[in-house]
Amino acid sequence: MSKVRYGIIGVGNMGSAHAGTIFHGGIKGAELTAVCDGLPDKREWARQQWPGVAVFESTEAMLASGLVDAVIVASPHYSHPEEAIKAFSAGVHVLVEKPAGVYAKQVREMNEAAAASGKTFGIMYNQRMNPLYRKLRELISSGELGEIRRTNWIITNWYRSQAYYDSGSWRATWSGEGGGVLINQCPHQLDLWPWTIGMMPTRIRAFCQFGKHRNIEVENDVTAYAEYANGATGVFITSTSDAPGTNRLEVTGDRGKIVIEDGKMTFWRLRQSETEFNASNKIPFGTPEVWKVEIPDQGPSPEHAGIMQNFTDAILHGSELIAPGEEGINGLLISNAIHLSTWTDDWVELPFDEELHYEELSKRIASSTFRKSEPAAPAMPVDLSRTF
Amino acid sequence: MSKVRYGIIGVGNMGSAHAGTIFHGGIKGAELTAVCDGLPDKREWARQQWPGVAVFESTEAMLASGLVDAVIVASPHYSHPEEAIKAFSAGVHVLVEKPAGVYAKQVREMNEAAAASGKTFGIMYNQRMNPLYRKLRELISSGELGEIRRTNWIITNWYRSQAYYDSGSWRATWSGEGGGVLINQCPHQLDLWPWTIGMMPTRIRAFCQFGKHRNIEVENDVTAYAEYANGATGVFITSTSDAPGTNRLEVTGDRGKIVIEDGKMTFWRLRQSETEFNASNKIPFGTPEVWKVEIPDQGPSPEHAGIMQNFTDAILHGSELIAPGEEGINGLLISNAIHLSTWTDDWVELPFDEELHYEELSKRIASSTFRKSEPAAPAMPVDLSRTF
Repeated sequence: MSKVRYGIIGVGNMGSAHAGTIFHGGIKGAELTAVCDGLPDKREWARQQWPGVAVFESTEAMLASGLVDAVIVASPHYSHPEEAIKAFSAGVHVLVEKPAGVYAKQVREMNEAAAASGKTFGIMYNQRMNPLYRKLRELISSGELGEIRRTNWIITNWYRSQAYYDSGSWRATWSGEGGGVLINQCPHQLDLWPWTIGMMPTRIRAFCQFGKHRNIEVENDVTAYAEYANGATGVFITSTSDAPGTNRLEVTGDRGKIVIEDGKMTFWRLRQSETEFNASNKIPFGTPEVWKVEIPDQGPSPEHAGIMQNFTDAILHGSELIAPGEEGINGLLISNAIHLSTWTDDWVELPFDEELHYEELSKRIASSTFRKSEPAAPAMPVDLSRTF
Repeated sequence: MSKVRYGIIGVGNMGSAHAGTIFHGGIKGAELTAVCDGLPDKREWARQQWPGVAVFESTEAMLASGLVDAVIVASPHYSHPEEAIKAFSAGVHVLVEKPAGVYAKQVREMNEAAAASGKTFGIMYNQRMNPLYRKLRELISSGELGEIRRTNWIITNWYRSQAYYDSGSWRATWSGEGGGVLINQCPHQLDLWPWTIGMMPTRIRAFCQFGKHRNIEVENDVTAYAEYANGATGVFITSTSDAPGTNRLEVTGDRGKIVIEDGKMTFWRLRQSETEFNASNKIPFGTPEVWKVEIPDQGPSPEHAGIMQNFTDAILHGSELIAPGEEGINGLLISNAIHLSTWTDDWVELPFDEELHYEELSKRIASSTFRKSEPAAPAMPVDLSRTF
């Protein structure tokens, strides 16, 4: 194979952006051969946008055409696992948009189908391409920061006005999206959190507020507290109504502290680890010697194009995936645990009862205002260049 | 009265510092006439330090001497209310060191004695003199920041090594101090938190870790989540084993965000309040216009001397107290609620059951390693110029 022939499932906001990138030659070794969408208006629009590309009404028809080696799943959140499973069954590689799905139970089935197919499986965690977070991960995995003790992520800069929520009847509903800021805006951070530090929490106690300062069903204000097997703790705070919000990630280890804020990384490096200092220090108010290290600018992030290039290279040349699809479940487990802790007003130990989570989610879907018979989205994509 | 004659109860680390300030003429309208301490070595040392100042073995003897108009209570934490009550009964003004006491029940009795006496009652909340926090309070009370929505205080720079904890057998024990970072290091922040925003939490869910990376009984790592009557939320994170720690206070309101970090205050001011913007905005990804305002340097803090001067001026000239003693209970209620939430592994609604808190504390005192018969502290004060 010299080129990967791509089909896009769903040409809404994100799907059409990815289609455009491939169509215009943005990904080496990739070509856009097909798209599919259930809405006639969108299919018509797609024909005009990408002349020569086959346009299908259904995923099944596109997969049966033999025109595609790989698909990008960019349909509504709930359908990601279902669409991916169809593609794996047809022997096609899958790059799934975030979130991996809405509930863990469903995503496990997708992961099983992927494993059984032997096909390449990636997830659009484009923030894993961000050199800042890559560097953080490297500084941790190499031991520079020492054993992790604390993470505080204040990620409250997901401002969304009521006009945003009103722009699609499916938005911010239990039946349309299955969650709010955790499912729509935060999947990247919920992935980066365990990915950079290399640890999943062992238990979570979380506090969601639903429809805060907004007329919506789902959570848009979240404070979550996490504990880890080694005794470390963490806090994750997010909101869509704070203005202006903050994006500040602080990670403390036995050998210092790293802060990422305003696109810059600062490493306060201890000359001697805290554990060693504490064991030998005899001065009551003594403190370890600390050096402020400004980590050089790591350059721009290749974002979505970077993930698509890496995924294409994995298919063509066996390159290692930066965002393996199977790892999509990690951030979702945290997201699900945060919901479940709020709903049960109690701790959630990981692994948690995924059936119970699904039952609780189903109750909320049952009383949701959104009905799937309504139009799923505005007919034409809007400019999402400022979003992820 | 042209001068307030001061007596110091306890010439340990803080008491001797305050005595020195007054003795050397640091407070206008104040003179040091007496000190008292139960330890013979300290009394001998005091006679050498402050010639001409009367030295007593007991509070009772000092109060009976008629030599003092006001006392500064700088004895061990537990005894603050008891010593203050003695002084009020003798018709003497009281400036009490922080914390006001160790448990709320006990501090209420002190407040009642103060009210009954009609004497001036202050608390050594020297951080209320810090122009940064005074400015924050002013920007909030004047409405510049709008209604408060969120506070995040990461105050993890209370580094204390094992050598510190080993420097006094009473340190970091339930019977000696009645708590750890919440009782010894954080009282200022626990006071400033409600004082600056003008709100007390309605309920708290907190997570203390006891003896984290240190061989001590009490909490030295805390994450607390707070909710307020208006729907606002807050997080308070503190530690004595993070190196280097952080001191970053972020307050978000309807009209923007203020961050105090590294001794600087930045105000991100919305041109129009978030509520107004949200109500009128029609652009799905629209965000409110925000101006970054660098609040001018507010100058140095007069710290403890500022509190002592204000307290003296209140006695002599009726000046308004910056830190009224009665308000000492606010931070302590938060501190007690954080302990209680951890001990019961549940929410604590404020006001909480103070008897239950005291019962739980008493259990820990009963099994504490420290026995009050042991020497209470090192004989000579150590240099505390770098602490508060």
